[in-house]
Amino acid sequence: MPSIDPIQRLILAFSKLPSVGEKTASRFTFYLLNRSPEIAEEIADALSALHSAVKFCSECAHLSAQDPCRFCNSEKRDSLTICVVEDVSALMAIEKTGEYRGLYHVLHGVISPFEGIGPDDLKIAALIRRLQKLSSKQALSEVEVIIATNPSVDGEATSLYLSELLKPLGVNISRIASGIPMGSHLQYADQLSLAQALVSRRKL
Amino acid sequence: MPSIDPIQRLILAFSKLPSVGEKTASRFTFYLLNRSPEIAEEIADALSALHSAVKFCSECAHLSAQDPCRFCNSEKRDSLTICVVEDVSALMAIEKTGEYRGLYHVLHGVISPFEGIGPDDLKIAALIRRLQKLSSKQALSEVEVIIATNPSVDGEATSLYLSELLKPLGVNISRIASGIPMGSHLQYADQLSLAQALVSRRKL
Repeated sequence: MPSIDPIQRLILAFSKLPSVGEKTASRFTFYLLNRSPEIAEEIADALSALHSAVKFCSECAHLSAQDPCRFCNSEKRDSLTICVVEDVSALMAIEKTGEYRGLYHVLHGVISPFEGIGPDDLKIAALIRRLQKLSSKQALSEVEVIIATNPSVDGEATSLYLSELLKPLGVNISRIASGIPMGSHLQYADQLSLAQALVSRRKL
Repeated sequence: MPSIDPIQRLILAFSKLPSVGEKTASRFTFYLLNRSPEIAEEIADALSALHSAVKFCSECAHLSAQDPCRFCNSEKRDSLTICVVEDVSALMAIEKTGEYRGLYHVLHGVISPFEGIGPDDLKIAALIRRLQKLSSKQALSEVEVIIATNPSVDGEATSLYLSELLKPLGVNISRIASGIPMGSHLQYADQLSLAQALVSRRKL
């Protein structure tokens, strides 16, 4: 087709986004068509910049415009605490709690034999190197590694693998707590979370 | 900020789409980040082309890459039937039924005193000119204008206004039917649609 319809073209393109069907893609397209071109241009520019401007932080493998990233580069963060996450979205979720002042390490996935993802496909070797480098400046017994992979089958397996791997280095290892969500009712909690909440009960 | 984070930038940009909040915008962004750059580029290019490649059809005011548009340019369409719609999305919805073989006329809105939109803000004068031009080739008594504005307050008012305006020209004017949706239950139909279905009942 020499001149494919620009409206149809954008609807097709939007349909490639996750859980966006033709109806939602049409709604996005007609919304933008009725607004000033600046909004469409703004999204277009941000999309074009996404892959070209993003780089891995050489310390923690976080993805951002800077290397080292703003966390590794900050003097206000606690450099003796490293929170290991599956991906950048998990990092952002933790950061948004406002409760965490340490550094991060992004694995970019979890070990998943089912999907053929092994330890070598993740940023695990980089984590070991990072801790070894840190050990020249700091006793690793003062360093804490918080394993914050998701409480899924693969996330738990990765957590177990990491804790076995890191133990010989002498770092303190911890795992984020699982249980029933804050503000929820026991009545509506899923069985697994409720069982975990019982097992991980703490003394008052 | 000299180097705003490209991930954050795209999340913000996506958040400008209708009913897309920060969570959905993040999901879109991380999805694209984990896919090949081609997908992001494809959406970016389609967005950039949207406003620049789209033009009004000088006949029917449809928006597409061509002028006249593929409907007005087609010899297979019935040029004696003109369906008046509010916008391009309504045109596409009708086209998708596969039931309509006539031409269109896109108003680009409806008369809405509440929002300060009057007849002059819509493609109504263009419709009159189009019918006058057509009358030199064809008796207007053989032409049908189907008013397919939405069955809303403003859509009904616009329909009334148009029918009063077009009657003196001698064209046949019709209005799309309203009633309870096909496949639905009377039990669940809204009162207005059910009332309309009774009023517009047809003899069997």
